[in-house]
Amino acid sequence: MGLSSEGVGILRDGASGAKGGVEGVLPPYRLASRVRHPEDTRIRVRDVEIGGGSRFVVFAGPCAVETPDQLLATARIVKEAGGAVLRGGAYKPRTSPYSFQGLQDEGLKVLAEARRLTGLPVVTEVMDPEDIEAVASTADILQVGARNVQNFSLLKKLGRVKRPILLKRGMMTTIEEFLLAAEYILSSGNPQVILCERGIRTFETATRNTLDLSAVPVLKERTHLPVIVDPSHAVGNWRYVIPMARGAMAVGADGLMVEVHVCPQAALCDGDQSLRPDRFRELMEELRPLARLLGREL
Amino acid sequence: MGLSSEGVGILRDGASGAKGGVEGVLPPYRLASRVRHPEDTRIRVRDVEIGGGSRFVVFAGPCAVETPDQLLATARIVKEAGGAVLRGGAYKPRTSPYSFQGLQDEGLKVLAEARRLTGLPVVTEVMDPEDIEAVASTADILQVGARNVQNFSLLKKLGRVKRPILLKRGMMTTIEEFLLAAEYILSSGNPQVILCERGIRTFETATRNTLDLSAVPVLKERTHLPVIVDPSHAVGNWRYVIPMARGAMAVGADGLMVEVHVCPQAALCDGDQSLRPDRFRELMEELRPLARLLGREL
Amino acid sequence: MGLSSEGVGILRDGASGAKGGVEGVLPPYRLASRVRHPEDTRIRVRDVEIGGGSRFVVFAGPCAVETPDQLLATARIVKEAGGAVLRGGAYKPRTSPYSFQGLQDEGLKVLAEARRLTGLPVVTEVMDPEDIEAVASTADILQVGARNVQNFSLLKKLGRVKRPILLKRGMMTTIEEFLLAAEYILSSGNPQVILCERGIRTFETATRNTLDLSAVPVLKERTHLPVIVDPSHAVGNWRYVIPMARGAMAVGADGLMVEVHVCPQAALCDGDQSLRPDRFRELMEELRPLARLLGREL
Amino acid sequence: MGLSSEGVGILRDGASGAKGGVEGVLPPYRLASRVRHPEDTRIRVRDVEIGGGSRFVVFAGPCAVETPDQLLATARIVKEAGGAVLRGGAYKPRTSPYSFQGLQDEGLKVLAEARRLTGLPVVTEVMDPEDIEAVASTADILQVGARNVQNFSLLKKLGRVKRPILLKRGMMTTIEEFLLAAEYILSSGNPQVILCERGIRTFETATRNTLDLSAVPVLKERTHLPVIVDPSHAVGNWRYVIPMARGAMAVGADGLMVEVHVCPQAALCDGDQSLRPDRFRELMEELRPLARLLGREL
Repeated sequence: MGLSSEGVGILRDGASGAKGGVEGVLPPYRLASRVRHPEDTRIRVRDVEIGGGSRFVVFAGPCAVETPDQLLATARIVKEAGGAVLRGGAYKPRTSPYSFQGLQDEGLKVLAEARRLTGLPVVTEVMDPEDIEAVASTADILQVGARNVQNFSLLKKLGRVKRPILLKRGMMTTIEEFLLAAEYILSSGNPQVILCERGIRTFETATRNTLDLSAVPVLKERTHLPVIVDPSHAVGNWRYVIPMARGAMAVGADGLMVEVHVCPQAALCDGDQSLRPDRFRELMEELRPLARLLGREL
Repeated sequence: MGLSSEGVGILRDGASGAKGGVEGVLPPYRLASRVRHPEDTRIRVRDVEIGGGSRFVVFAGPCAVETPDQLLATARIVKEAGGAVLRGGAYKPRTSPYSFQGLQDEGLKVLAEARRLTGLPVVTEVMDPEDIEAVASTADILQVGARNVQNFSLLKKLGRVKRPILLKRGMMTTIEEFLLAAEYILSSGNPQVILCERGIRTFETATRNTLDLSAVPVLKERTHLPVIVDPSHAVGNWRYVIPMARGAMAVGADGLMVEVHVCPQAALCDGDQSLRPDRFRELMEELRPLARLLGREL
Repeated sequence: MGLSSEGVGILRDGASGAKGGVEGVLPPYRLASRVRHPEDTRIRVRDVEIGGGSRFVVFAGPCAVETPDQLLATARIVKEAGGAVLRGGAYKPRTSPYSFQGLQDEGLKVLAEARRLTGLPVVTEVMDPEDIEAVASTADILQVGARNVQNFSLLKKLGRVKRPILLKRGMMTTIEEFLLAAEYILSSGNPQVILCERGIRTFETATRNTLDLSAVPVLKERTHLPVIVDPSHAVGNWRYVIPMARGAMAVGADGLMVEVHVCPQAALCDGDQSLRPDRFRELMEELRPLARLLGREL
Repeated sequence: MGLSSEGVGILRDGASGAKGGVEGVLPPYRLASRVRHPEDTRIRVRDVEIGGGSRFVVFAGPCAVETPDQLLATARIVKEAGGAVLRGGAYKPRTSPYSFQGLQDEGLKVLAEARRLTGLPVVTEVMDPEDIEAVASTADILQVGARNVQNFSLLKKLGRVKRPILLKRGMMTTIEEFLLAAEYILSSGNPQVILCERGIRTFETATRNTLDLSAVPVLKERTHLPVIVDPSHAVGNWRYVIPMARGAMAVGADGLMVEVHVCPQAALCDGDQSLRPDRFRELMEELRPLARLLGREL
């Protein structure tokens, strides 16, 4: 297929006539821009390469680490089905102070154990500058959640960490603001930033947020950083996760972040949007031939 | 691939546990709902079948009919590349009264001539109840534009027409309101309605509107009506049309509506978002293997 | 108070440095703009003057005309409390085709009777070009609803009517688009357009829509047309109508449109947002000293 | 005027039939809610009382502290015109890492000097938990900016500070989320929270954001905390600040936060929206009789 030899057809198009910046003046996100850095950034985490167009990387796991059993069972499923990175929240940003706030330090230990057993690198969120050291000593990738995308103090401190940062777009963040948030990390010294589209807030209520898949080709045109998509938080309902995962791959994302839970109805958070193990396997089965067609390994 | 034997994997998922209505109580859009009408509606226009999962239908053509030469040249390109339906606006809804308002009756004649030469069925917009008769005597499909999605007088009158109606979602129409707009046509007697997602209005300005691809699986779950996607108006820039067209197919749409112009830089409207002929051919080439993978004819 | 001698302080500010157009180039809404028409348009309907800064005009009445008794009782309350114009829908644009669609022609007769008894001019919505003649033969002011703000066929036809038009901003309409919608009426020959801000659609759900009161000073700066505010539809709850009515007056609106019902809990539509008679009187009592302070008659 | 004896007419209305919670079940923001705490919270800062309905409190000053001269000159103007609290950013959250980030510690010293000279209490933003101690040792009120409204780590730490917190609503924060953000501070031990509406992000571009004045009566009904309004950031243009300030007072806010600069065209940030000294005096002159009418001291 024509796609495979040319990435996903975006970069080439973008290269000819790009208002987004490829041939224009240097945008305010100087380091994130493709203008002076046209080739894709590739981020290596253990044996996984993120960005660069060869591999489509699936990050999967539960919203929150709840118990060792829950996480370890999920980690095995993710590993067996072909997931590349294990996700799981130890520190949880919750709208209400009275909701479950995560296992915190205990959760980090469980993540480390899951990595030891499966070999999967782990990603987990950091919310407080005070926790950066503890999180960075366990996690392979540190996540900044949507609500902290413009927490500039946190971003600057993550610029001094020697770990890749997974930066989620905020519900209210424009693409330009998102790239400038990444620029805070890059300009503070950390070149390893992975961008994640996870839905924006609109008037529509049939889905939890509105997954902005057009942000993927726009971002791929403007920046050399890897771009992944989280359909689970965007749609808020497992029934729409599989089609939107296919869509994310088709528009040119470098990977996916999906929520998987051994028992969604018992999940302490976001059960509605988590895939059951059998459905996660089905997702991976559906993505495999699509990846092949688009010239990507899964 | 697993998909092909099961449509795009949505309906089956939707069938088990559907909050959207499949197993729930009858929603207010009684006739549009799948509750009492679980099988897909298939709409036949000349030899083209829209809906039902076998064919992926590409509607293509210029935003506006400008001259006979422009339309006929574009029609030939659409035909040769495998497009199924020719689009072209004769009556144009323009934000400003001083912008080009379309060739109107003259445009209808040019559309009829293009159909005669290529055999392609034609779709064109109707804005005024007074014009319904004239438009219906030429067009194979009558389009209701985004700004008229809740022009209930127009919708009721289109319910008495013996032609399929292509109903575009408004820029701020919820999915429920969209289905109720379709219900106006259905309940007035016309069962042939094709829904078209074309981008919603959000705070993001990098694209003209935000293409809500998650509306496709939500709609496919709730309604038996065919659902197509117009990426051209949503993104407002030809560079993002091809990836978003792939995305639309991957999330389960029944077809696509794209703008093609023989000379986009000279277009009287929406030139920025129109594909050149070579890029339209490239789009069709990219979609073909993807359609095959997903079990669809193109 | 300083305000009274200078309108509401906007025009003067606007006159010095106005990006909005007062001193700039002619905007695309040539006729609606203040550039070539700096003085306020004053629209006279029977003995009521709308626009021009002397009077603050209250349009009040039920959402829909339901029965002669309901309308006549409400009309008397509106009249006694100092309302200037009676509103009441005969043709109702409803999201669902199965909701009450209004009394239609019968409703027009009831409106005429209410005017005869109270002397109040009446405003009612017209949705269908076919009904323009009938509505214009009864109503003193013809209303275009939010959903039809870009129904350009209807707007052009209303440009040929000899009645003032009350044009409501759509839920998704920018201020520039709103002025261009007015321009359709003006450029078709009718100079009597009253603009009405009625809330825009946002992500917030605590109110039905979000009343954009900042649109009032922006509009007053850019256009000479009168600007009124409908807080009832915007907030969707009678409890917030009185404070928002005060706010509308304070930001410089020329008037108000509020829903009043003799028995809100029995209303066929929009009962939640309708004021009971005693609360409407309270609203008028609260507005009176505020109007005096701002140099307006009520 | 009827208003004066009953606050702004909201609480009483709210008390009868309030869906917002006054008579309903305890909402998730237990401590912020009026259900168990019906009387207004009054926060005393030096000799200024915020909340409680007697005084309308004007916070004013430059967006950022730039130089001692700039701040001291502005502070004198604020003081002379009747402002109650001096604002000025020392730590500035800027979209781009390359924009002026504030004078930081040096800025705090300048604020302390301005307070010494004028007697005005000062409010300034804190972005980083590390800076809380330094900021709290100078500022009378600590501000949380819109981008940090859901920075839960910061909020929890501010719950342990013995200073009032001014919490700004985020650009895409619902009223419920806003109250839950306040709840993080309250439930961590600090009962002194002042809420500030500062505009939400919508599709409209004529103003920087859309000032949601209807949030004021909704908040006043649901919570006992003081509510102030920042029109400067919301509209982004000084020409609309005065009318929106009048509107904020009229809908029932407890105060105002406005940007004032001795020389807006030379401001290092947000010059467009800052009032010149003469216009700030004009604002105060316009507000004075309105406050009197509404039963408030200014």
